[in-house]
Amino acid sequence: MEKISVKQLYRNAEQYINNDVTLSGWIRTERMSKTFGFIELNDGSFFKNIQVVFDDKLSNFNDLSKLSISSSITVEGKVVECQNAKQPFEIHATNIIVEGLSDSDYPLQKKRHSLEFLRTIAHLRPRSNTFSAVFKVRSLAAFAIHKFFQERGFVYVHSPIITGSDAEGAGEMFRLTTLDLQNLPKTEEGKIDFSQDFFGKEANLTVSGQLSGEAYAHAFKNVYTFGPTFRAENSNTARHAAEFWMIEPEMAFADLVDYMDVAEDMVKYIISYVMENAPEEMEFFNSFIDKDLFNRLNNVVNSEFVRITYTEAVELLKKSGEEFQYPVEWGIDLQTEHERYITEKIFKKPVFVTDYPKDIKAFYMRLNDDNKTVAAADLLVPGVGEIIGGSQREERLDVLEKKMDDMGLNKEDYWWYLELRKYGTTKHAGYGLGFERILMYITGMSNIRDVIPFPRTTGSAEF
Amino acid sequence: MEKISVKQLYRNAEQYINNDVTLSGWIRTERMSKTFGFIELNDGSFFKNIQVVFDDKLSNFNDLSKLSISSSITVEGKVVECQNAKQPFEIHATNIIVEGLSDSDYPLQKKRHSLEFLRTIAHLRPRSNTFSAVFKVRSLAAFAIHKFFQERGFVYVHSPIITGSDAEGAGEMFRLTTLDLQNLPKTEEGKIDFSQDFFGKEANLTVSGQLSGEAYAHAFKNVYTFGPTFRAENSNTARHAAEFWMIEPEMAFADLVDYMDVAEDMVKYIISYVMENAPEEMEFFNSFIDKDLFNRLNNVVNSEFVRITYTEAVELLKKSGEEFQYPVEWGIDLQTEHERYITEKIFKKPVFVTDYPKDIKAFYMRLNDDNKTVAAADLLVPGVGEIIGGSQREERLDVLEKKMDDMGLNKEDYWWYLELRKYGTTKHAGYGLGFERILMYITGMSNIRDVIPFPRTTGSAEF
Repeated sequence: MEKISVKQLYRNAEQYINNDVTLSGWIRTERMSKTFGFIELNDGSFFKNIQVVFDDKLSNFNDLSKLSISSSITVEGKVVECQNAKQPFEIHATNIIVEGLSDSDYPLQKKRHSLEFLRTIAHLRPRSNTFSAVFKVRSLAAFAIHKFFQERGFVYVHSPIITGSDAEGAGEMFRLTTLDLQNLPKTEEGKIDFSQDFFGKEANLTVSGQLSGEAYAHAFKNVYTFGPTFRAENSNTARHAAEFWMIEPEMAFADLVDYMDVAEDMVKYIISYVMENAPEEMEFFNSFIDKDLFNRLNNVVNSEFVRITYTEAVELLKKSGEEFQYPVEWGIDLQTEHERYITEKIFKKPVFVTDYPKDIKAFYMRLNDDNKTVAAADLLVPGVGEIIGGSQREERLDVLEKKMDDMGLNKEDYWWYLELRKYGTTKHAGYGLGFERILMYITGMSNIRDVIPFPRTTGSAEF
Repeated sequence: MEKISVKQLYRNAEQYINNDVTLSGWIRTERMSKTFGFIELNDGSFFKNIQVVFDDKLSNFNDLSKLSISSSITVEGKVVECQNAKQPFEIHATNIIVEGLSDSDYPLQKKRHSLEFLRTIAHLRPRSNTFSAVFKVRSLAAFAIHKFFQERGFVYVHSPIITGSDAEGAGEMFRLTTLDLQNLPKTEEGKIDFSQDFFGKEANLTVSGQLSGEAYAHAFKNVYTFGPTFRAENSNTARHAAEFWMIEPEMAFADLVDYMDVAEDMVKYIISYVMENAPEEMEFFNSFIDKDLFNRLNNVVNSEFVRITYTEAVELLKKSGEEFQYPVEWGIDLQTEHERYITEKIFKKPVFVTDYPKDIKAFYMRLNDDNKTVAAADLLVPGVGEIIGGSQREERLDVLEKKMDDMGLNKEDYWWYLELRKYGTTKHAGYGLGFERILMYITGMSNIRDVIPFPRTTGSAEF
């Protein structure tokens, strides 16, 4: 008897109708009469359940009637077409083997649970419809990203997680140590003696793989990172986690336009891939999480993204007559309210805003000829605001060094990064996509804790 | 003029012969005569260089004669077929634009460098032949792994990197903190007050995603993790790094045989994918790194892996007459010398050794009916020894709890792991593959530092 998955059954039903099959999975619901029983079985391979029908000819019929939700079973039976039923087919069981019972205090009983409650059972929540859909989409979106870049010849680089410098310079970092905190070794001056620590010096968790990416782009031309990054920021919001995954492509012989072209293609590719490969899950999100989801995603996939300069954006915001909480003036950092107004109200589609004032952007972004702006571009999307940030990188050693001096950075910490400009520097560009941010966008989930299997946030590292 | 990559040119030469193209890349070598010049150009997209020929009709001919290795240039010219030459075609340049010069102290001059030296310039070493090949293969092997599992419906799970418990129980961990080490807060009893730390308690870097994987396998049936893991072990060897990547598949409704079937398929798939997609790089390894490489890899791909029990393996070793440094007795943990003897001398192909004594294996491995062994299996391969370790997991709550008690583990730390056995437990199995270990196997590189872009080892976290 062929052992198959529920997905195989749904995707190739004609192949199995009237045949005997074996399926293993967990009971989602069970209804019993005196002589009949119905089980909705889910095996995790597919969003939908398969109905299993059995009767008292089964020798263990009485035991089966006592099974509770989430018990695991193996079913042998025939695939039968259904007329006039919600499901196109069902299994008429000839044998049901109980693999594992489920205690009656199983927390995921058949009723609506709050997302907050489900976070407290992060080990069980992927068995719920919502989180089954979220984490299936997470898996598919991750693969779509790899597929997109590999098809274009980009080399995947594992940038280091542990970093011996804080040269990445973005936000607060987690320190890493193997020293005995109860008994820290001290130098003669009374400072902590990190020379005795595991790496012989202070070490932190990475906040970005960009600098490594730039080094590798100068060998492979097109590269991308996809790995965890960390921020020890004390912000307890629905959009911040201490541990999240980032995608950071970096391209040599490329300018800001090249970056925008690739990023636009990538966003469309990820969305299309997920919609094509998880239609049932996406339907669920559109019905139960965000009724505007398909409109929003289709709009992104089918739009040509707008590209305007920061200066133009500021003019449009000022002319709009809208009262913003933060007044708009050339030179300010755009706030989420401004970003959303631009993409939702003015253009009603994704917008790249380019060429920001140099003073509000990072040291490595390329100075434009106007000496006032840098070749940066942020991608704003309706419903969220900024989803990607990137720039052309400063490839001119003298300009970069002056910028670092002006910003008070220690050039010695960046010796190898500066050497990339000494040995065959190139016009190059790159960007960062927060993986959870695009997942929230694709699923409609509004809290970052609900798109990460076991989220780590201020005060919380459970499981 | 079409902008193309060197890879496009090599893979679709007929399309470009006698056409004008534009290429950007870095100079690997340059030879000049009074009126002619030859440049070997590499653009990172392809292992091989393309030869660029130019003459003094170019207005900047004199400048070009001064270019040093690693300068970046853009070449416009015609693709011309070569007769009787090592390369099948070359570019006759009509214009060469210098993008970025390279200082004359460029450390990667055209000569053989030691791997040790190249580690000190980890930001430049991917520009060398050896490391260009290594990190291209690393990228392809990573994608092959995702492709293999996604094609089989496995869900990719990002298990957490930061862990609030040390329940994973394998080796020493890195502690993580945002406390001010110079000024650690103390409790009334004089202990460090971790309630004031970022997560409100002690936190460490993960050593394994297995337990998370098991939770998700009980929702999705088949899952895999692929992420960084950490060991704060003070072992300064060619095979240990403090930060490395692991693949940990986990399968519900699966036993030891199912794990071995998947692992065998996976190993063959990864090797085949890399050999097919990086033929030039693999040729390089076989010629310059390990002359036996192709023999070894082809043997793996074409063999049916042997499966023997630990007890049988011990008998074979004892009967072999070989003098081992560690004498062989039933109950010992097999050493690398034993593993290599089994796979290299006895069977000359990959071997799964199964059913190890329970006392030398982890608490979560399933106890066999003999009450002496567990359903574990390690995969041994010629040239290396163990490359994969895995087991069927103990799915019976009472047996698992007894094992934990016997081993002195604190069950409260594992409350959610134990709940997987309370709510629809299943026969399930999984394994761990060290990504760097299979990379060393595929490339023939013998030091783990040479298959990680920026390696982290005892005393070293440079770049």
